Amino acid sequence: MDRSLSAFGEKLCAHSGILELMDDLGNAMTTHPQMRMMGGGNPAAIPEVQELWRSRLRDLLDNAPDTIDRMLLNYDPPQGNPEFLEAVASCLSKAYGWKLSARNVAITSGGQTALFFLFNILGGPAAQAGQSQGKILLPLVPEYIGYANQGIAHEMFVACPPVIEEIGDHDFKYHVDFDAVEAALKAHTVAAICVSRPTNPTGNVLTDGEISRLSVLAADHGIPLIIDNAYGAPFPNVLFVETTPHWDDNTILTMSLSKLGLPGTRTGIVVASEQTIRQLASLTAVTGLANNNIGQRLVLPLVRSGEILSLSTSVIQPFYREKSDTARQLLEEALGNDIPWKVHVREGAFFLWLWIPGLKCSSRELYERLKKRDVLVVPGEYFFFGLDKGRDTWPHRHECLRITFSQPENVVREGLQIIGDELRRL
Amino acid sequence: MDRSLSAFGEKLCAHSGILELMDDLGNAMTTHPQMRMMGGGNPAAIPEVQELWRSRLRDLLDNAPDTIDRMLLNYDPPQGNPEFLEAVASCLSKAYGWKLSARNVAITSGGQTALFFLFNILGGPAAQAGQSQGKILLPLVPEYIGYANQGIAHEMFVACPPVIEEIGDHDFKYHVDFDAVEAALKAHTVAAICVSRPTNPTGNVLTDGEISRLSVLAADHGIPLIIDNAYGAPFPNVLFVETTPHWDDNTILTMSLSKLGLPGTRTGIVVASEQTIRQLASLTAVTGLANNNIGQRLVLPLVRSGEILSLSTSVIQPFYREKSDTARQLLEEALGNDIPWKVHVREGAFFLWLWIPGLKCSSRELYERLKKRDVLVVPGEYFFFGLDKGRDTWPHRHECLRITFSQPENVVREGLQIIGDELRRL
Repeated sequence: MDRSLSAFGEKLCAHSGILELMDDLGNAMTTHPQMRMMGGGNPAAIPEVQELWRSRLRDLLDNAPDTIDRMLLNYDPPQGNPEFLEAVASCLSKAYGWKLSARNVAITSGGQTALFFLFNILGGPAAQAGQSQGKILLPLVPEYIGYANQGIAHEMFVACPPVIEEIGDHDFKYHVDFDAVEAALKAHTVAAICVSRPTNPTGNVLTDGEISRLSVLAADHGIPLIIDNAYGAPFPNVLFVETTPHWDDNTILTMSLSKLGLPGTRTGIVVASEQTIRQLASLTAVTGLANNNIGQRLVLPLVRSGEILSLSTSVIQPFYREKSDTARQLLEEALGNDIPWKVHVREGAFFLWLWIPGLKCSSRELYERLKKRDVLVVPGEYFFFGLDKGRDTWPHRHECLRITFSQPENVVREGLQIIGDELRRL
Repeated sequence: MDRSLSAFGEKLCAHSGILELMDDLGNAMTTHPQMRMMGGGNPAAIPEVQELWRSRLRDLLDNAPDTIDRMLLNYDPPQGNPEFLEAVASCLSKAYGWKLSARNVAITSGGQTALFFLFNILGGPAAQAGQSQGKILLPLVPEYIGYANQGIAHEMFVACPPVIEEIGDHDFKYHVDFDAVEAALKAHTVAAICVSRPTNPTGNVLTDGEISRLSVLAADHGIPLIIDNAYGAPFPNVLFVETTPHWDDNTILTMSLSKLGLPGTRTGIVVASEQTIRQLASLTAVTGLANNNIGQRLVLPLVRSGEILSLSTSVIQPFYREKSDTARQLLEEALGNDIPWKVHVREGAFFLWLWIPGLKCSSRELYERLKKRDVLVVPGEYFFFGLDKGRDTWPHRHECLRITFSQPENVVREGLQIIGDELRRL
């Protein structure tokens, strides 16, 4: 049986980097435990955090069995659990002085789904006949692999390559090329601007100045600025530099419980204008009736008390900061000075973004070689999408690897040593 | 800020029956507890079943904290948890002799999402230029309200009105009009045939003969037959007539944990050809990375042991059968013989499908009047979609209500009495 698919089916069921990554990740987690898992964005096992979720569950069972019953038995409204929406609005208002009510918050089945909804309600063929197709502008690629295949329309993304600042022998940082961004805004019908901050895959954190300039450009063009804050403040706050979180009525901020150690609950949070929130709730109703409510219920008291902020700042952030520092040092030991290599400055998130200038094979091929040696990484190619055809031959896009450092130190050490070894064999 | 949406946004964020229903339901459950909830498909609180889920959670916390940790901390593969997929395949193979492996099973974030995926990967604009748009054929409407707005393309559905068999003074049953179905297959490019069985909203169960004929028609046209089995066998088995479950490689069977009392976990299950399963896994990766895994983990041992079948047959089915019988009797008491009324024969699911021949207002207006008196039902109009324009004036489509009987007896009694009272005031 070989059935023809619709255009939607052909587009969204095609081979995608994110499918490969999630298959690799899930299989490593469930059926190939010997794999050194430095691919996906799975959070680390932090004993203190895991104990917190277990004790919260136990507390509900012991002291509030009715809450457990309601949690499992009832459909929430499509926008999310009203108590949780209220708590998030209040928590963020207190932390940052933003003027938010529960009507500015919606839940989705993970942050990935929030972006799928947002890209497609904003970008793609226009509702009005005669208008041109709206694009999602990515001001700086490499950008998150999970966006690449989310457009229902073809060529949903327009992306700008960065300015690369090289720092010493082994470090570099990407900056937004605002000339390229302004040119893209002129050349295309742009429906929204989107950035992840901290950036997945690079660990870059756009500066307050960059965000402010993007925000002004978005407002000037009457389009929203989407900031994917999956790793950002105030929770999980996996940030190693000082930054100011940004939100206004023209900003759509997406957050998640995943990097708090709860990806299994699939809980995304969107903070946006009331109009956008209503649209997302409609979409949830139509595509899935309601969200699962277990993550919201587990985390609710911590959001209400504000404890989620101290957990993020005192436990989660230092944990990953130390992991990041250790990983950087292990990388230095594994690659030495006989191979040319550079790593993006580590400003947040769970990754080393490794650049091998002059890499003798594609990063895709390197990924395959490493996988055979039980080391999973993500080839950099997948993060460079939406670029002009003129950039097809840009060597940089084939010379990078995303390496997750959230696993235990011995796994990261072995993995990096094997990477060094493979690079020397090329 | 009044932004223009894409065509996708305009279509899927429009007012929809399912949004209204889910908003009503969620608000009744969370902020308006005085409402008599006879609208949505929320399952009943069955103490024995609720105790089962609580004790399963407690058992995991006491005896397998590592399992709890992994459940919360890890992303599953996009297709679903490998252990759960294996268990479902094995359970269904044993029960019905179907030749299934884990490669024939995929998880989605609830059954609603499975249908959203399936309708749109099969129906809508063709991938190949020059081919006409594929339709989803509903052989018998009224059909599930939740499908109505799921087409990304306009006019996704082609539907056939039923043959109505009147039985005595107060009962009736819908049958598939196969002449209409064959005419629709000739007149349109049909991409798939879809039925819910038991049917939501009517409680009708298509006969084995009807299913077998639809299956042959689907195979003859080289298109799949989708059977939405959310209320069906072997779990939750809310069936009050003898039927034979149907699956073959050309059938896509969707199931759910919701009606087992776990809608809060959003767990849909699809049983289909390996090719279709791979497509659904791709779509899950792109749109949401992975599924939440809590429902799968809670239910896993019951699926492995087969206990889920006896739970369904010995606890869940008799519970709803009694509810259905009681509701029918309470309806008789509330409406008496001074109003003309008929109810669809009760063969499965949670609903009375009430038909008031000659109703003096639209069922939509009746819904509004009842809501003001704290009785929530669903107006019948929403379940009649995809019909020819010639059917716009068909009175029957404005004369029906879906009434959920899963709530406690006093709620159902009061609700039905208020319905009788409003009907007499018209």
